[in-house]
Amino acid sequence: MKLQTGYLFPEISRRVRSFQAKNPDVKIISLGIGDVTQPLAPAIIEAMKKAVDDMESIATFRGYGPEQGYDFLINAIIENDFNPRGVELKASEIFVSDGTKCDIGNIQEIFGLDNTVAVTDPVYPVYVDSNVMAGRGGKADQNGLYDKIVYLPCTAENNFIPELPDDPVDIVYLCFPNNPTGAVANKEILNKWVDFARSTNAIILFDAAYEAFITNPDIPHSIYEIDGAKDVAIEFRSFSKTAGFTGVRCAFTVIPEQLKAYTKNGRAVELNPLWQRRHCTKFNGASYISQAGAAAVYTPEGKKQCRRIIDIYLSNAKLIRESLTSLGYQAFGGLNAPYIWMKTPDGLTSWDFFDRLLTKANIIGTPGSGFGSAGQGYIRLTSFATPANVKEAMKRFADV
Amino acid sequence: MKLQTGYLFPEISRRVRSFQAKNPDVKIISLGIGDVTQPLAPAIIEAMKKAVDDMESIATFRGYGPEQGYDFLINAIIENDFNPRGVELKASEIFVSDGTKCDIGNIQEIFGLDNTVAVTDPVYPVYVDSNVMAGRGGKADQNGLYDKIVYLPCTAENNFIPELPDDPVDIVYLCFPNNPTGAVANKEILNKWVDFARSTNAIILFDAAYEAFITNPDIPHSIYEIDGAKDVAIEFRSFSKTAGFTGVRCAFTVIPEQLKAYTKNGRAVELNPLWQRRHCTKFNGASYISQAGAAAVYTPEGKKQCRRIIDIYLSNAKLIRESLTSLGYQAFGGLNAPYIWMKTPDGLTSWDFFDRLLTKANIIGTPGSGFGSAGQGYIRLTSFATPANVKEAMKRFADV
Repeated sequence: MKLQTGYLFPEISRRVRSFQAKNPDVKIISLGIGDVTQPLAPAIIEAMKKAVDDMESIATFRGYGPEQGYDFLINAIIENDFNPRGVELKASEIFVSDGTKCDIGNIQEIFGLDNTVAVTDPVYPVYVDSNVMAGRGGKADQNGLYDKIVYLPCTAENNFIPELPDDPVDIVYLCFPNNPTGAVANKEILNKWVDFARSTNAIILFDAAYEAFITNPDIPHSIYEIDGAKDVAIEFRSFSKTAGFTGVRCAFTVIPEQLKAYTKNGRAVELNPLWQRRHCTKFNGASYISQAGAAAVYTPEGKKQCRRIIDIYLSNAKLIRESLTSLGYQAFGGLNAPYIWMKTPDGLTSWDFFDRLLTKANIIGTPGSGFGSAGQGYIRLTSFATPANVKEAMKRFADV
Repeated sequence: MKLQTGYLFPEISRRVRSFQAKNPDVKIISLGIGDVTQPLAPAIIEAMKKAVDDMESIATFRGYGPEQGYDFLINAIIENDFNPRGVELKASEIFVSDGTKCDIGNIQEIFGLDNTVAVTDPVYPVYVDSNVMAGRGGKADQNGLYDKIVYLPCTAENNFIPELPDDPVDIVYLCFPNNPTGAVANKEILNKWVDFARSTNAIILFDAAYEAFITNPDIPHSIYEIDGAKDVAIEFRSFSKTAGFTGVRCAFTVIPEQLKAYTKNGRAVELNPLWQRRHCTKFNGASYISQAGAAAVYTPEGKKQCRRIIDIYLSNAKLIRESLTSLGYQAFGGLNAPYIWMKTPDGLTSWDFFDRLLTKANIIGTPGSGFGSAGQGYIRLTSFATPANVKEAMKRFADV
């Protein structure tokens, strides 16, 4: 009941519905919510059809799977996402689930209620809201900032890379490539955070849902590419943006066995068995069909096909960033990331520019202020629309 | 870290693996974990294939769905599961999810941490464990009973129907048809609980995952068939046992809009918007393919086909109950329910009889003591095996 505002996207929907009702003939283009538009890769479709077939006969039917996920998927994940980057993981360190939103919302359950939480500002709202629901937020001020949460501003001045907190914190949420700013972190930046966590016994919750959009070889895809990260970091990965699984639902979380948190008395506690217990008690495994589809992402055809889809979105992102820049706007992100973080013109607030964009150009963006107070004066545009719609939207931008 | 024991089923797996390793040629029959064995109904297979097809082209692709579930499923649920029983529900009162284990494990999040929780003994472990994890358990005694949890014993003496608690409680978990005892509750029993909840401002969390096994027309399938229940009860439903979805993952929770809980200061708070916020913040909808499959359960063919599968399990249950009774055992449940609750012979503990059953007859049961201290001296047998395996298991029982 202490949560200040509704979840951001319902309010966007409300304004869009209201505008569309008054202007039924207008074709609105959404560069708002980060949902994919390209259909699933043929290799995934084929694998899921085979999985549905398996459910039709008693010999191949699958009931409850392992709560942690099927070995066929876990092994494919380790061999393809991690080993080629020099990261060794055990099967028991991977927890397959139905979505990163769930995992990253639920992970706080294995931490004490008096743990201090640091988040970037702007930030994906789930990190904050799930902690406020659990009771770690304290009181909100008039800007919706909670007094027990530590906010790390990400602004144009610091290239949208947060500074280390002034005082020790217990838990830090980091997301690179970042939602909403599109910022990425190189090894030096991640090293600094891992060192900080190691020296202060903090835990890093690393959201790598957008790692597939990294094309620059100098940028790590996994925080475990950083020495020592396995001692301090939990990593979240998703098939939603990597393979278009927003409607299929499959993701995974990595908790290295060597990762320890510390009780008030200084006792070291391994987090892998705590999450294992949580996962087995309150979750019953991701759909067999979704897991079969996810495993196909790692086949040679699946890889090629998914890559082509990511390239479509990356080329959308490039077009958006370059178009906005050439129109004189300040635009960030959109390289190695599906999000473009755009400064509103004329000192407009995020919502005022949202309304202008909707009414003048019939484009939906996401108000930056919805991601935190440092997001005020920005709007997030996503590259997940179809190329034709992105082109059309960029034309309309000239009239905004 | 206060949880006393590992989850029950991993320990069973450990003992079974150890026995099988020493006796590799033995064919073990599982009447243990409640997982289905019959393949999915053809109507469901067909609907899921069509849903996979939808994901293949840009025009029919589905990304994020509504977190609460698609209307096509919600409407089918209301029209088929509730309206024919005289229960009116709004679409906004149904929350589709990926499983009842998740919902019933997560629902406690919308309640205060100092709320008192009552559970039956024996009980589905998730009710207790999820509350202990949240901090509502207090300390455990040597039998694994938590001092802040109120236990309501269900024994042969009370026909496995719990008495009302002596003192007021805030939350009561009820499950009918019951897991693990197979007991069912008629209108009189449910009326008593609804009256209790209404007069003491308690909330009933009603687990109706096994309602499809009810054949006696006098037994309610939904607690909302009881007058006044919408003011005090949340109901959990699953496609896992109804339609064989243990590997497909789809379920739903009903929270009537009129349902209110009360703060310490006596302020009434509607629970529907609280769960709505929780559901939208920490969950991203069930798989579109699973939801399409679930909707097919309500088609005329789907209904007939699923009914035939339930009848197989009910006929297994009848055979188990009658075979055990004719062998001189005391067996409960198994009528209107997929579970048989069997008294161990010779005063054996649940685990001792589990071991005897495994080694002498190569049958897996579930030790009653794993469901709570009042389950000591019982074993749970399930009817979800194939008819051939159930017949064979009953033959072997003669030698136990």
